[in-house]
Amino acid sequence: MAKQRIVTLTTDFTTTGPYAAAMKGVILAGAPGVTIVDITHDVPPGNILAGAFTLAHAIRFFPPGTVHCVVIDPTVGSDRRILAARYGGQVVIFPDNGVITVVDQTMPLEAIHVLRDERHFQSRTHSRTFHGRDVIAPAAASAVGGTAVEKFGPPPETFKLLELPEPRRGEDGELMGEVLYVDGFGNLISNVPADLLPKVFDGVGDLMVTCGGNDVGQIVAAYTFADDGAPVALINSMTMLEVAINGGSAAAEFGLGVGAEVVVRPSAGRMNR
Amino acid sequence: MAKQRIVTLTTDFTTTGPYAAAMKGVILAGAPGVTIVDITHDVPPGNILAGAFTLAHAIRFFPPGTVHCVVIDPTVGSDRRILAARYGGQVVIFPDNGVITVVDQTMPLEAIHVLRDERHFQSRTHSRTFHGRDVIAPAAASAVGGTAVEKFGPPPETFKLLELPEPRRGEDGELMGEVLYVDGFGNLISNVPADLLPKVFDGVGDLMVTCGGNDVGQIVAAYTFADDGAPVALINSMTMLEVAINGGSAAAEFGLGVGAEVVVRPSAGRMNR
Amino acid sequence: MAKQRIVTLTTDFTTTGPYAAAMKGVILAGAPGVTIVDITHDVPPGNILAGAFTLAHAIRFFPPGTVHCVVIDPTVGSDRRILAARYGGQVVIFPDNGVITVVDQTMPLEAIHVLRDERHFQSRTHSRTFHGRDVIAPAAASAVGGTAVEKFGPPPETFKLLELPEPRRGEDGELMGEVLYVDGFGNLISNVPADLLPKVFDGVGDLMVTCGGNDVGQIVAAYTFADDGAPVALINSMTMLEVAINGGSAAAEFGLGVGAEVVVRPSAGRMNR
Repeated sequence: MAKQRIVTLTTDFTTTGPYAAAMKGVILAGAPGVTIVDITHDVPPGNILAGAFTLAHAIRFFPPGTVHCVVIDPTVGSDRRILAARYGGQVVIFPDNGVITVVDQTMPLEAIHVLRDERHFQSRTHSRTFHGRDVIAPAAASAVGGTAVEKFGPPPETFKLLELPEPRRGEDGELMGEVLYVDGFGNLISNVPADLLPKVFDGVGDLMVTCGGNDVGQIVAAYTFADDGAPVALINSMTMLEVAINGGSAAAEFGLGVGAEVVVRPSAGRMNR
Repeated sequence: MAKQRIVTLTTDFTTTGPYAAAMKGVILAGAPGVTIVDITHDVPPGNILAGAFTLAHAIRFFPPGTVHCVVIDPTVGSDRRILAARYGGQVVIFPDNGVITVVDQTMPLEAIHVLRDERHFQSRTHSRTFHGRDVIAPAAASAVGGTAVEKFGPPPETFKLLELPEPRRGEDGELMGEVLYVDGFGNLISNVPADLLPKVFDGVGDLMVTCGGNDVGQIVAAYTFADDGAPVALINSMTMLEVAINGGSAAAEFGLGVGAEVVVRPSAGRMNR
Repeated sequence: MAKQRIVTLTTDFTTTGPYAAAMKGVILAGAPGVTIVDITHDVPPGNILAGAFTLAHAIRFFPPGTVHCVVIDPTVGSDRRILAARYGGQVVIFPDNGVITVVDQTMPLEAIHVLRDERHFQSRTHSRTFHGRDVIAPAAASAVGGTAVEKFGPPPETFKLLELPEPRRGEDGELMGEVLYVDGFGNLISNVPADLLPKVFDGVGDLMVTCGGNDVGQIVAAYTFADDGAPVALINSMTMLEVAINGGSAAAEFGLGVGAEVVVRPSAGRMNR
């Protein structure tokens, strides 16, 4: 079987308008027969953190050699650079604005280079406002065709990473985290990884969660263990602590979003022991 | 030409977030070169009937051998089973919650089995909240690679089907149906199949339709036979009776949705004959 | 390498519901192994101008031989014809309602024919309301399989084109255009092409733009040259004059849409020279 060649797109273009399709045309013209996969085009406009989070939790499931284009790029046309990096055998091409942060935290960086040598990403069109089409898509076609990221240009001295909030201990021994991401169901995904809980507390089963002052109850195994319409805390499919409403939207119900406080405490019974 | 291998996805994930893309990564890693088609990711969250309806009216157009993944799965993590069925030469992998109902009514069931033998759907990740990624996607990769549904596990004793309302005769001889599905245009699609009308009435041309008490007029051949902005009743592309607004949304205009009453009567002139 | 075969879809179906997927099933059944690309399914319902605009600014990036299906078709079921045209080596299959207008203005027409010879687009299903599935998709499968558009039927005597507004000179020498299209970011894209500006004015750098009476300032090179939240005028990636809000939605902020007036004047300093 011929080697499978995959290019993905993560953008804030929405699915209206010609922008995502223009990139696909450029990629297919430059790399005939490639498989194109939409990660999402519905990152909130210019929301680098949401893009970083979505990208990271999708790309780790793709096979080695996959090339990922990221176009959440509010400063397009400025002197911000475009980078091509290899993480765990996959390639990501992205503006140097921090959108690589969560991938960088969770996958091994093998190489990172500035897009400079235009022989490797020649474009029919040149704009100051759509480098996704005019730079990133041609570079992706090159990369999926076998051009190593090392060929694109020199390594950067540094590259931008977002400073994400870390969970911390409160005065009474509680664990204080915050919401990093809100998904399409309105689930509130915190910055508390599952494996932190047994380190901080002596066991996990009888921990109580509050979110933005709302009582969410004990951590359970799945949404369905809460009553319909009731709040629920669980370890989600990204192995992060998540606050949800079973069958509803926690974001809408609680009126909460990114930055909302998530607190984990031993349950009262346990504190009395 | 190599045999074409197709996997489709029908979910309520929305197109924000990493969930649909994570499934695609798992499928492409497990079945290199496969063609992935989105049926939709915009089923209203947890709406099993809407998922059942959308699935059935899309999959009958796909070629034999296509594998369909269905992840409208509000009780993920409970003891509800995942099933793999073969209908009309195509495979559907779905949670046993009734989402197969409309396919089961409209395509011949050839085999149905419980997903049990994990050798056929091994996953790198295991969660209690995302069986779409951790069970259904790997099973789809196996199935499209040639694993027969019979290999996945034993047949279930029974499986869940929704009880959909049937059209019935009213006291004055009218036919009383109801809205089963609202599409993206706001068209109200009823449970009245076209071929029922000539059986119930003596001909179709001069039948009058009301919907939720609103007069919709005679059944016509296409939207464009109503004035712009006027209500219209027609036999739609699924050969079901549909109530629409030409150039508008009947759902919004009438404030109606699933469950709204749709009544068909002979026209007055005809009743006088 | 086998010749790459691509079929695209541009519709107003939204991504809910089975309609787009039904077309994909028909195409894959008729042309196994073809690559299907969504241009968009989010054209506002029945909005022929928005469809025309999106189509034109996407398809010019696709390789020769690509087949494009257009289903913005509010008069489906009437006697409006379906046409198949070849523009610049690519094929477009579309209802004769003006949706080809912007492609026709920007790409060379090589052939145009009425879909009449049903041997070339046989369908399993026949409806009066979904020619996208029953006519256009089977025709696309034929076309991408090698059937020349000349085989589909006779050339039309004429075909429908929208009359789009042209920019004109005002009484004081200003250039008066209007908004033709609003993209997913809420950017207001005018009918003023970049290359008109140096012809009308003596240089471009110090031109001032107003939109619907709102002062937008000088034309700059990219969004990022305006303050965050400030209005900005620029030449966009389609080489058209565009009015935007840096990091926001000009459509929402100004309450403007298609038809809003866009005026370009030399800056005051320059008028005093």
